[in-house]
Order: sequence, then structure tokens, then C-alpha cells
Amino acid sequence: MRASLARMTDRAVCVIGAGLIGGSLLRAATKAGREVWGTSASAGTAATARADGFDVTTDTDAALRRAAELDALVVLAVPLPALPDVLRRVDAVAPACRLTDVVSVKVAVADVVRELAPRARYVGGHPMAGTVDSGWAAGHAALFVDAAWVVAADDGLDLDVWADVAELAWACGSRVVPAAVDEHDLAVARISHLPHLMAAVLATVGAGEQDDDLPLALAASSFADGTRVAGTRPELVLAMCEGNRDALLAAVDDALGRLGAMRGALASTGGLAATVRAGFTARQQWAATREPLEHRVHLRGPAALAELRELGRWGEVVVGWE
Amino acid sequence: MRASLARMTDRAVCVIGAGLIGGSLLRAATKAGREVWGTSASAGTAATARADGFDVTTDTDAALRRAAELDALVVLAVPLPALPDVLRRVDAVAPACRLTDVVSVKVAVADVVRELAPRARYVGGHPMAGTVDSGWAAGHAALFVDAAWVVAADDGLDLDVWADVAELAWACGSRVVPAAVDEHDLAVARISHLPHLMAAVLATVGAGEQDDDLPLALAASSFADGTRVAGTRPELVLAMCEGNRDALLAAVDDALGRLGAMRGALASTGGLAATVRAGFTARQQWAATREPLEHRVHLRGPAALAELRELGRWGEVVVGWE
Repeated sequence: MRASLARMTDRAVCVIGAGLIGGSLLRAATKAGREVWGTSASAGTAATARADGFDVTTDTDAALRRAAELDALVVLAVPLPALPDVLRRVDAVAPACRLTDVVSVKVAVADVVRELAPRARYVGGHPMAGTVDSGWAAGHAALFVDAAWVVAADDGLDLDVWADVAELAWACGSRVVPAAVDEHDLAVARISHLPHLMAAVLATVGAGEQDDDLPLALAASSFADGTRVAGTRPELVLAMCEGNRDALLAAVDDALGRLGAMRGALASTGGLAATVRAGFTARQQWAATREPLEHRVHLRGPAALAELRELGRWGEVVVGWE
Repeated sequence: MRASLARMTDRAVCVIGAGLIGGSLLRAATKAGREVWGTSASAGTAATARADGFDVTTDTDAALRRAAELDALVVLAVPLPALPDVLRRVDAVAPACRLTDVVSVKVAVADVVRELAPRARYVGGHPMAGTVDSGWAAGHAALFVDAAWVVAADDGLDLDVWADVAELAWACGSRVVPAAVDEHDLAVARISHLPHLMAAVLATVGAGEQDDDLPLALAASSFADGTRVAGTRPELVLAMCEGNRDALLAAVDDALGRLGAMRGALASTGGLAATVRAGFTARQQWAATREPLEHRVHLRGPAALAELRELGRWGEVVVGWE
């Protein structure tokens, strides 16, 4: 189907960072036939990636120069705290490049890009894919298949780069969900960052008192699933959650309010029906969103981005151009 | 190895209830070569189970009479709210039977057994196995393989029935974890009941506001895993959690305290390291308990039950007699 559409590029891709997400993107874009190269801050990772057949260097400036020459799409795939250093190199070497990222918060990244690489043609992105494992070795080309890939759709963004990011997402097998960056951050606070913190608390409560190993000895699937993401490398969770502080506070307060109300009901009447039934309904509602409506969009005119944001709010996805 | 041990019986088993757990137990004990029959309150379920080749009736009295005649082990596999009616039949038809249960709380069951079937030789049990699905069709013979199966070890219990329950658990492929009933209830509040409530709250917060479908459209594996048990039939969750109110309140308060402290840290310094690192450590600690020390025990003498309880507190398991 896609081959018949008007605009499809084979734009080259430069991936800064070769961890789980960057490394998977290198593999997926290569598999999709793109010209792809990347960087890693770690000489060991770069050597491993090269041994695996990928063009990965520790020389960020060289990678960015090549991107500027080929008008490639540069993808920032490093944790939030590492972004300022990278963006200073972007501004020095490839100041007007096509730029996106795969970081799990969007307002903070947009802010730092505006500050440190203001000439870059930046459109933020966030593929909703990950595993508890991290690093190059954990990556694979299929990581993004069937994942939602958020593409920022705030007014004023460059529509040509928007299309580049969407086409990269499709090339990796993802569905494109357009969203304003602040709405993205509120959403992921609820469905990704809060789950990481709740998992941490659940694991800690489950471990219980010292010298009592009975709880963990009895822990089965409800504990295993509920705490799975507590096994993620703490640095990654902290970079993600602490970078989304305001949105996360709202989600935490929502959770605390509901838990407090449940505590009150349990202590007074002993009844938990309101909590349990609301959770059951919400989980069913989520299951129903697994088959989103698919749209082909016009990427033209002053209202294009507003229309895209509206699709995202409906939970719908963009699958191509018309 | 087990064939060489002194005490192994092929005691017949009567299972009251043919839902997920009872139905799986019927299959597992049959596969282990035991004489097994069961009951269901539903004529449809009984007919389906019979069509599947199992001896299941709606006539509870007939099933219990046969248990009394054969000195079988009677296993209560109905939800807590359905127990009083069943126990009245036990007291009327098989008053001194060998009796255990597979209900997920232990203090409340012990109380109602003491009240309604006081002559029964009761030793409570709880296999830590389950799925989100329920009912006969969801059951299978391997459900209990490698699961922890708690066997109550309070002073005064009948050691001969204790051995029956342990041998049934082994026959189903489980590890036996001895525990006092109140310690069991505190432990499962932390690692099973609280996870169900946290999952319900997480699902509800994730669903967010009406008319904003973006959060659920972006929900990926951290949300999917963290809310999985929110998909359990609400009646089952309510029966389980509301039957363990006091222990659950303590676990909820522990979680609320930790979430509140986290909220304070996020709002003031923005730091989440204490929460995230404690969760990571606890999750690693749990992973380390997956290979418990295995014991063969003497089931003799006045201290036998106290010794068993101590093993459970260390997170260790009983795998045979010596």
C-alpha cells in the first residue's frame, strides 16, 4: 500500500546513542533499507556494534557532519541528562539538521533543544517500546513492531521533518500517534512513569520486614507482574521520571487520592467494590483500545497539526499520507 | 526419591467446587493417580466436567458421604462467601472428615470451619497459583507445578492430615511452605491482595479523564503488566481481599506511607532515588528467593509444627519426609 503513496523517502538516519532504543533503531532502520549510522559514548559498545555489522563510532562530530552533508534525520537516543552535551555538538556541527529523539519525556527535551540547538529542525518523538533489559545487546530490529510511536504535533513544527519522523516510525513497524508535547507528558506520567513508581513501592512492601522471608517465598504471578518494571536499571527510571516531574506529580496525586479513598472504605465498611470495579472497567477499556482507528492524512495547510493532535486525543493513529 | 520414604499415601480426594482451582486440582490429582471426585454448584459445569471425563456431581451430600466412607481428604475449593453452606453439609454428612481448603485467606476460613464444622480434622492450605481467567474451562493439570502451596502449621493441628495435605501438594507438583495462618494472611496481603488493589488503581489512573483517549492509546508493557490482575473477575478479587481486611489494611498503610514519602520527595527536591532503588533491591531479593532451600522433615513430636513454621519464615520449603 505504502509504495503507492505520494511521499515516501529513503532518508538516511543518524542515531546518537546505541543503547536498547538507539541500538534497536539502528537495526530496524537498517533492516528497512535505510542508510544508517550511529554513535556510542562507549568505545566497547561501538566496537561490539561494529562487530555485529553496524556503522557505529564514538566520534559524534564525524557522525553529525555526515548527517549535515546527506540532509539525514538525526535521532537523539541518549538519556535526558546526556542531551545537553550532544545538543551542543549538533549546534556546532549540524546546526540546521532534521532532528528528532526517542526520549520518554517531551517538554523537557523540547526546552533543551530550543536552548542549545535553536536552529535545528526539531520534531520530538517517543516510541512506546522497551524492556527491562538495557544496552546494545538487549536491542533487536523488531522492538518497535506494533508499538505506538508518538510524534510531537505542536503548532509551528516543520511538516517536512514531521513526515520524516512518521516515515521512520512506519519503517520500524510502529503506529504513529500525534500529540502535543505537554499532553504526551501527562499521558506517559499516567501509563508509564507512575507504573514504574507503583512497581517499586509494591516490591518494597512485598519484601516486608527483615527476618521474614515468608512474603517473598509466597509471591507468585500477581507480584511478579506488578513489580516487573521495578527490575529496570534505576538510573533509567530516574532519568525518565525525574524529567517529567510536574506531570508525574499530578498522576501520583490521583493515585494517592484513590488509594486513600480505598483505605477509608476498607477500614469503615470493609468494602472494596468501587476500587475493584473501576479498575476492571479501565482494564477492559484499555483492551478495547488495542485496535485503534487508522487514518491517512493530508500533511498540508495551517490546520494540519491541530488536526493531527485531535486524532491523538481520540486514541487514533496515522498510517499513511493521502 | 519419594517412593523410598516411609509415608506416602494414595489417599482419595474429594474436591468441593470445580472452578479454576478446584477444576485444576481435580485434573492434577487424577493425573497423579489418585481416586478423585468432585462437586460443582452449577449443573452446566458438572456436565462439562463429566464430558471431559471427570467424576463431578452437583450432589454435595453424595460426594461427602463417599468421602466419609473412604476416609478421603476433602478439599474446599469454593470462594469464601460460599463456605458456610458447604461446611454445614460437611458437619451433617462427614463431620470428622480429613479437611483442607485452597482459599486465599486462612484466618477467616479457620474461623468459619471452627464454627460450622468443629469436628472436622481441618488443616488449611493455599496453593499460590492462579490466572486472570476463571472457571472449569480455564483449569489445567499443570496449574500447581512449581507453585508454593502453603499448609497451615499452627499448634494443635492433626499431623496425619498435615501429611495428607503436603502429599497432595507434592502430587500436584508444588513446593510446600508451612506457615501459621495469621502470618500467611499478612504475607499474602503484601504479595497478592495489595497487588490486585494497586493494579486496579493504576488502571483507573491510566484511563484518566473521559474524552482523553491518549493515555490508553500509549499504554505499553509497563501498564499492561502493572494492571494485568485488574482484569480478574471483580467478585473473586473482592472475596479474597475483603476476607483479609485487617492484614490488608496494614499492607495498604505501608504502601500509602511509602507513596506519600515519594510524593513529598518529588515535590520538594524532585528526587525519586530512595523509592526507585528500594524497589530495585526488593525485586532483586525476590528473584534470589526463586531457589529456596529444600528440607525433608520429621513429622513427629510436640515441636514439629513450630519447626515447620520456622522453615516457612525463612522462606524455605518442605519436599519430603525422613
